[in-house]
Formats: sequence, structure tokens, C-alpha cells
Amino acid sequence: MKQSQMLIPTLKENPADAEIKSHQLLVRAGYIRQIASGVYSFLPNGRRVLRKVEDIVREEMDKAGAHEMMMPALQPAELWQESGRWSTYGSELMRLHDRHDREFALGATHEEVITSLVRDAIKSYKRLPLTVYQIQNKFRDEKRPRFGLLRGREFLMKDAYSFNESFESLDESYEKMFAAYSNIFARCGLDFRAVIADSGQMGGKDTHEFMVLSEVGEDVIAYSDTSDYAANIEMAPVVAEHTISHQEPKPLKKVSTPNQKTMQDVANYLNHELAEGIKAIMFKVDDQFVMVVTRGDHEINDVKLKNLYDADIVDLATEQDTQTLMGSGFGSLGPVGTPKEIEVVADLAVEKLVNVSSGANESGYHYVNVNPGRDFEVKEYADLRFIKEGDPSPDGQGTIKFARGIEVGHVFKLGEFYADKMNASYLNDQGKSQTMVMGSYGIGVSRTVAAIVEQYHDESGITWPANIAPYQVHLLSLNPKKEDQKQLADQLYDQLKSAGIDVLYDDRKERAGVKFADSDLIGIPLRITVGKRAGEGIVEVKERVSGEQDEQEHSKIIEYVQQWFSA
Amino acid sequence: MKQSQMLIPTLKENPADAEIKSHQLLVRAGYIRQIASGVYSFLPNGRRVLRKVEDIVREEMDKAGAHEMMMPALQPAELWQESGRWSTYGSELMRLHDRHDREFALGATHEEVITSLVRDAIKSYKRLPLTVYQIQNKFRDEKRPRFGLLRGREFLMKDAYSFNESFESLDESYEKMFAAYSNIFARCGLDFRAVIADSGQMGGKDTHEFMVLSEVGEDVIAYSDTSDYAANIEMAPVVAEHTISHQEPKPLKKVSTPNQKTMQDVANYLNHELAEGIKAIMFKVDDQFVMVVTRGDHEINDVKLKNLYDADIVDLATEQDTQTLMGSGFGSLGPVGTPKEIEVVADLAVEKLVNVSSGANESGYHYVNVNPGRDFEVKEYADLRFIKEGDPSPDGQGTIKFARGIEVGHVFKLGEFYADKMNASYLNDQGKSQTMVMGSYGIGVSRTVAAIVEQYHDESGITWPANIAPYQVHLLSLNPKKEDQKQLADQLYDQLKSAGIDVLYDDRKERAGVKFADSDLIGIPLRITVGKRAGEGIVEVKERVSGEQDEQEHSKIIEYVQQWFSA
Repeated sequence: MKQSQMLIPTLKENPADAEIKSHQLLVRAGYIRQIASGVYSFLPNGRRVLRKVEDIVREEMDKAGAHEMMMPALQPAELWQESGRWSTYGSELMRLHDRHDREFALGATHEEVITSLVRDAIKSYKRLPLTVYQIQNKFRDEKRPRFGLLRGREFLMKDAYSFNESFESLDESYEKMFAAYSNIFARCGLDFRAVIADSGQMGGKDTHEFMVLSEVGEDVIAYSDTSDYAANIEMAPVVAEHTISHQEPKPLKKVSTPNQKTMQDVANYLNHELAEGIKAIMFKVDDQFVMVVTRGDHEINDVKLKNLYDADIVDLATEQDTQTLMGSGFGSLGPVGTPKEIEVVADLAVEKLVNVSSGANESGYHYVNVNPGRDFEVKEYADLRFIKEGDPSPDGQGTIKFARGIEVGHVFKLGEFYADKMNASYLNDQGKSQTMVMGSYGIGVSRTVAAIVEQYHDESGITWPANIAPYQVHLLSLNPKKEDQKQLADQLYDQLKSAGIDVLYDDRKERAGVKFADSDLIGIPLRITVGKRAGEGIVEVKERVSGEQDEQEHSKIIEYVQQWFSA
Repeated sequence: MKQSQMLIPTLKENPADAEIKSHQLLVRAGYIRQIASGVYSFLPNGRRVLRKVEDIVREEMDKAGAHEMMMPALQPAELWQESGRWSTYGSELMRLHDRHDREFALGATHEEVITSLVRDAIKSYKRLPLTVYQIQNKFRDEKRPRFGLLRGREFLMKDAYSFNESFESLDESYEKMFAAYSNIFARCGLDFRAVIADSGQMGGKDTHEFMVLSEVGEDVIAYSDTSDYAANIEMAPVVAEHTISHQEPKPLKKVSTPNQKTMQDVANYLNHELAEGIKAIMFKVDDQFVMVVTRGDHEINDVKLKNLYDADIVDLATEQDTQTLMGSGFGSLGPVGTPKEIEVVADLAVEKLVNVSSGANESGYHYVNVNPGRDFEVKEYADLRFIKEGDPSPDGQGTIKFARGIEVGHVFKLGEFYADKMNASYLNDQGKSQTMVMGSYGIGVSRTVAAIVEQYHDESGITWPANIAPYQVHLLSLNPKKEDQKQLADQLYDQLKSAGIDVLYDDRKERAGVKFADSDLIGIPLRITVGKRAGEGIVEVKERVSGEQDEQEHSKIIEYVQQWFSA
């Protein structure tokens, strides 16, 4: 393609709102443009890159036996009401009315549509298992769209759904998708981990997120430094063994701690370690108030609390509720003297504590020599804290480290959640009606493009992996006003095209400096520059990633390029 | 693909709401399913067919020098307000609010988005001309969605936009697109015409619609029986020469015509031809009342009236307005005695009339011996009627016939309409700011699939053109319970796949009758049946279109299929 006739508007400056590299570079290099907050157009080079990723996804999905289909973005509210998500999905679901005032959702995901379709189309076990997928724009009204393609409101997604006879069959479909996902992200050149994740609002059980390791990721991953164990930190169980102190329990005592605000302040003031204090926080678990207690150096994990109570909603209690229930605000809260009607649950580490401090439910005072069980009743000891760096890995191999990740994929065992609510059943080989068992599997295709840029860039621009780059070769005619340069560049352009090589030809009447800078920014793997030595038939070849360059006889260029890409 | 593991739910009965063949067959053969009125899912075979058409479109667009991109469906209201279409597009435009109560349109078309994008990205004539396109779902809230994929509310469309320096350059871009469109529809095997069309609400001038000839088409085309002239009947100019009568004008006379309602009633009662009466209708042209007069056998064409007055809105006057202005309802209206402030315009044929009849603006009475010019003043004689079958073709070659057509494509010279409203300008080679000149070019991709089915079906099902069919070969294992049949079918399936032939393998445990019926319905070009003679290595081959069948040695099948498709 001739660059003079293409829409590749490069920019010298980063867009003001672009905080991260992928956002900055994709805009500056002319791949994307914002139309509204979190809504982007893909310009021709952006479309090409997107298609490279799409094609990898498509190939691996087909290989895994999934069938491509295409469902609409417009989804009648009735379907979402059947699943119950019309009310639970909240304001991320974009909604609209048609001219007859019927309500629709814009597809954020397609469980309802595919379930309604399959329940009508499939009646017999003979047609199961079935896995279908589509690649299509999805809509989610993010509260704070940001980071360019990483958190948008309209984005390209691959979503797949499996329908199975049984949970065992679901396990098989899940494994196939898991393997396909691993292939996809590996083929995209990404450094990623499959992490154990929270099943969230979708219902269902087993679930993994595919996380691209990146400092700009919004999720924190806890991973083993020796095995391939990795989990969302919310999900990682703590298996650390805490040993009991050998101190003798001493009598409970109230002490004055004037103006000591934080746990650390109090520990300093009372001259003990942070781990020798008790942290107490009041939660509202569905309709019940619960006091949760951890060691002072630990953080309460509300997902674990939610799972402990099998609750729908877990929120912090308001300071006013705390005041009413305990006679104390957040700052002085402690478990000693909790009224009977409020359950106290504690992290496993708390059980081993002896003679520690805690808030006295009175401003400016703490208890010391608090002993759990003796000074307050604990309804249950459970794993209620976040895992920490240095904790042993839950799989028993190595210790935990943290990394940040960008979620690019998600595989999910839905089980009977949707099939049950939407009456998707089939007749088994005994002629008996059974509920279908489902899985759902998503990949953020446009987000994957951004994740690739996060891992493939340098100070001059993008450094695409060869199979993702919009073109293989960037041919530069340095001074097209000089006839020998123009002629040789034109000739090479035709030869490269004839040889089936994807080439972007910078034939623009721009300064050499502009062309070099744009070329680095755009990030095509090989650059061929026709410059001053055109008359001798000599051109310059430069690798984008390594920066290595050398001069070549023009007649050997085709062979050189072909070898480079087959290497 | 094995049919037992694919989502191809065939139906014995036509869906109750399906009035036309493409709708009936695409649903019955398991290509599509309705999700809401005018909103469809494409099942795997439907997706495959759609992709075949998409790929043809993409190839021809690329060949024509257009660059693929992808714009979002979510479009901020502000852009549509800039172009003015937020208020003029009406209720077909689907609108919604985001969580911050900002208004959005769902892309019905993308002129605003691409214009805003290009005005920011392109500043110089050096980057023009530019043509971009995308293939993507569009949203239009049709009042009465019907006919399956022919008139839906969410549908797959290819839209392209050209940006040019001048109207001459636009002509070139338009011609390229016109040629690409002709190639596309020819490659889809369609019998179509490019017809001169109305520029409608989009502004702009030259425009052609690509119409697939079909009885179920919603548009009427006037075409020449000898040349390739074709136009939407609204657009075809009338070049018929009307000769003046040689009668002497007689004195105007009012006669009683009791209870004669229609033009034909009056003609019969007064014993003259329909063509010897005058038809008069009152219109409201923007804010002005205009009486339009044609010959009794002619129909007033309000598009021509609109163009004559260069008006935005042309409507029939209400009966009450007519009563107030003329002292008469619709039934007795005539031009004689029209008040001075109301302009009378007449079709060219009216100028030649002598001694004809017309309404007397008085219930139960008509004038006879009416002579235009003498008995009423005509502001202007102009071409104001619809062309008729039998009229001479406007290009001077042959006579006009009518046919019905399905609009599958539309090419459109927008001119400066959008660029002007949205300030899309560039600097020309003199450094002077100029308004960009634009074209827009659409293809209904999903509608094209339906149009193909309208032209390719028989009483048993669909008869796809070979390059559009979801698979090349439909392999049937007639009784997979018999080991020799299953074995040979499995073997052929593997061989066909290895040879790169797209094969759908009906391995289902269904009766032979069901398999044959489904195969005819689905409409794959070649059917290979492994049946009773499997033991001898003999299979049956049948052409879907011709119904011709013969038996073949299984070892020769690959060669047979390859030859059939290369023929």
C-alpha cells in the first residue's frame, strides 16, 4: 500500500488523556482514534492488526471444534429478565427502547441469546456437546473508561459457549478451550499466566483468567516463584501455618492511646509489632452485620468473606451503623464487648494470637493483652485475608510473588446457572429430560492488541511481533523527488508485492527525519530504505526490534526478506 | 464438519411469519433464527455464507483501492447534530443514553464519524483521494421489519466513503466503486440492474441503486427493453412526446356528474377516455400550497414535484386545507377558478390537451371543454408524472418495462453536504483551504444473502451458487449403523478434508428420508451418498441444481469433485 493514499495520521505528541504506552502509541502511530469516551475507531492499520489477532483466535477456535456464528447486538430485555441479569447486571449494561417502546440491551455478553437459541434448536443428547463462538463488538458502559483499548465501552470480543450433557463433559470442553487460549496468547507473543479467578456475578464455579503480565494491569496476580500456580489475589487461599505464641495470657487492660489513628500508630505507641495488634472491621453481609477480625498486618479479603457466608452482597458497614451497634466509629473498633447479636469471624492467624492489642470501642483507648476466645467469642475461624508476597504458594511449591496483569481472556464453567433459569434441557439416552451444562469463554480481541503493545514497544514506538504487525516490510523512498531513488523504490515495491510480501510503501513527499520517526512509531519489523546509494543499487535494511542495519544489493532484497520471515 | 455436532436445526414447516422464500428457507434450513422482530442470529452455516459474500466484497473493495477500517456502532449525538441528521433522520435512528446521560445514536450509517475523523487526520491535498470501508452491523429501527433478512433492524453492511479534492475526482472514485459493485453482484451470481435513484434525505446528487430483480422486491424499476437504461420509477424522466389535439376549443361548460367518484367514473359518465380528463391534486410544498395537474391516466410523481420546487418536504394538502382554499374536497377538485395566490403547475402532457373535463370544485359537477391556459393559468409545465410501461426509454433506446427489485447496493455522490456542515477542509496545492468532496457507497451484505436465495431456490430448498454455498460437498452416510457404510463414509470424509474440499458430513442417526430432505433444503452443490452399495465401494453423486445423479467408484470421488469445481 502506498502510504500517501492511506489513512495513517501519525502524531508527534501523546494525546493528553493517554496515560499508558499502548494508548499513547496506538493513537500516535495512527492505529486508532477516539470517537467518544471509551469508544474508538480502528484506522486501516489498526484494522489490519486486529484482523491478525482475530485470525489467530479463529484458527484456534476452529481447531478446538468450535463453530463460528454471529448473534446480534440488540437483545430483547425479556431474555435478560429470564436469566435475572436485567436487574443484577447494573448500569454497565447499555439499554435502549425501540420505536414501539420495547426495551433492549446492547450485547455485553451473549449467554441469554445463545441459551434461548440452543434450547429451541437442540432437544437430544445426540447433538451434544456443542461449542459455538463469535467475534463481534460488545458494549459495556464502564464508569471510568480509560487506558485506550484496555478499558473501553465498545470493544471487539470473541465469546464462545459450550453446551454439555454433564459436568464431566463440561470439564472436557473447558480443557479444550483452556488449551486453545494458551495457544492463542502464545501465538500473539504474549508473556501471560492463566490465573484462578473469581466467578463473580455470572454464577458458576471453576474459572480462569488469562492475564498478560504488565505493570499497567489493573489486576494483581499472586503466583508461585517455582510452579505455574497463579491466582487473582482475591482468590488465592492462604496456607501459611501460624504458630501459637508461648506467652502466658495476661489480664485484659484498657490503656489510653490519645490521637493514635492508624494500626501502625497504635503499634508504635504501644511499642509492639503491627502483627501484635488486631484489626476489626464491621461488614454488612446481605442483611446481617458481621465483625471481621484479622491480624494487624493482614488485609481482609471480602471475596473470601462473601464465599464464607455464601452471600450475594458484601459491603462495609456505614460509620453510622458502626456507631449505633458498637458505640464507636471506625477508628476505635475492636471485638471485645461485641453484642451477642453480631457474629465475630476471624482469620485463621488470629486464633494463634496471645496478649495483643485491639480497639476498645471508645475514642482514644485500646485494650492490651487481648486473647481471642477468652476476651471475645469467635463464631468461626476461617481463611479471610489476602495472600501476601512471601506466603507459601497454595500448591505447596515455592513462595508467592505478586505481579500486575491485564485480563485478556476468561474461561468459565457456568454449570446449570443459565440453563436452569431459562429452561434449556435435553433428553438423555434414557429419554429423560436433563438440564444442559454450560461453559462460557471470552477473549478481548481489541484489548489483546493493546496488551501486545504494552509488551512490545521501545522509546521510539511499537515493536510488533512479526505475525501481528500490519505489514511485513516498510519501504521508504527517502527523497522521491530524486528520480533514481523513486525509480528503485517503485521497482522494489512492485517486486515485494509480486513476491506476496505485505509492504507499506512510504512514497510521501516528507523529510527523511519524519519518515524514519514515523516508521519507528508504526513498528513494522523490517525497514528497507532507498536513499543516496540508489544509483548504485544499494539499499539499507533495518530490523525494527534490534535496530541492526546493513546495506544490501537491491537484487537480493526479495530473497533476504523471505529468509528473514521464514527464520 | 460433522453434522451431528453442528448447530443446523432444520424445520419441516415454514415459520408462521415468513412470507417470502428467502425468509422461509433460511430459517427452515437452519441458517438464521429470529431473536426479536427484525433481529437475527446467524447460525454456523449462515455465518459461513455471510463470510463468502463478505470476502467477495472485501476482495473487490481492496482491488478498487479502498482501505478497510472499523468504526464503532456507538456514535455521540453531537456528531449527528453537526450534520443536522439528529433531527432529520427520524425514528429509524436508534438512540440511547449512557450512564452519564449523554446521548448516542447506534450507527445506521457512518458519514458523521468518518467525516469527523478525516477532517482531523487529513489537512493536505497530498493525502487525497482516499477511500475507506468497513463491514459491520448497522442499526435502523424499521417501522415494519419483515421479509427476514430483507428488511431487518440490525443487519450486516459494507459501507465505504471517498474523500476527494474535486467533483471530477469524486466522479473517478464513484466510477471505481460502481465497477466494483458490478463485479461483486456478478460474482454473487445475481441478476441485477444498476438503476438511477433518488438522492433522498442524504443530500447530494448522482446516485445509483443496485437492484436484484425479484418479484418480492419492494422497489419498482423502469428499464429499457433494449438498452441497459434502468431507473427507480420515481426518477425516470418522461420523454414521451404528446401531440396536440386538432380539435377547435369549445366554450367552457359546467355539467352535472351526480355520484361519479373516480376519474374513471367521470370518464364513463361523460363518455370520454380517461386521458381526456384532468386530474388535480393540492400539495403542500414546504409552506406553500401548489395545485398539480396531470392527464387523467397519469400519476403525479411527488419526487419530481419536490425537485421542481427544490423543496425539503412535499405532502398532500389535508382535505380541510383543500376545502378552505378551493371550497371543495378532494373528489371535486379542478384547476378552473384556482385563487391567484395558489400556483398551478402541470405535467407536460397537459399542455397539449383541448376540450377535456375537470372537477368544478363543487360536489356533483364537472367542467367540460376545459382548455389549459385559456381556462386556468399554469405557472409552469414540467415533467411531473411517473413513467409508464410502454413509454419511450429516456435514453432514446427502446421502450420502458417495469420490474421489481431488491436494493442490495447504493452508490452516492454526497458532494460537499457533510464536509460543508462539519467543516472538513484541506489545503490545495496553492495552500488555499477547500471543502472536501465526498461519496458514500453501501452494500447490504446480509440482504445480499437473502437476495441470492430469492434467485437460487426450487421447491425442495436452496440451490446456492457454488462460490456462496456454506460447503462444497454434502456427504451423507445413509445408515451409519451399518459398519460398511459408516466406514466408507468416514474414509471419504477424511479424504475430502485432506484434499482441501469443504465438506459437511451428515453422520446423524436419522432416517434416509430426513437426510435427503435436509440436504436439499440446505442446498450444498454436490451431494455424495454412501448407501447400500458401500460394500462394493460404489457411492452416489448428485448435483443439487440439476438433480442429475450417477454412481461412482469411491476411489474416483476426489478427482470427480475437484474436476466438478474447476469446471
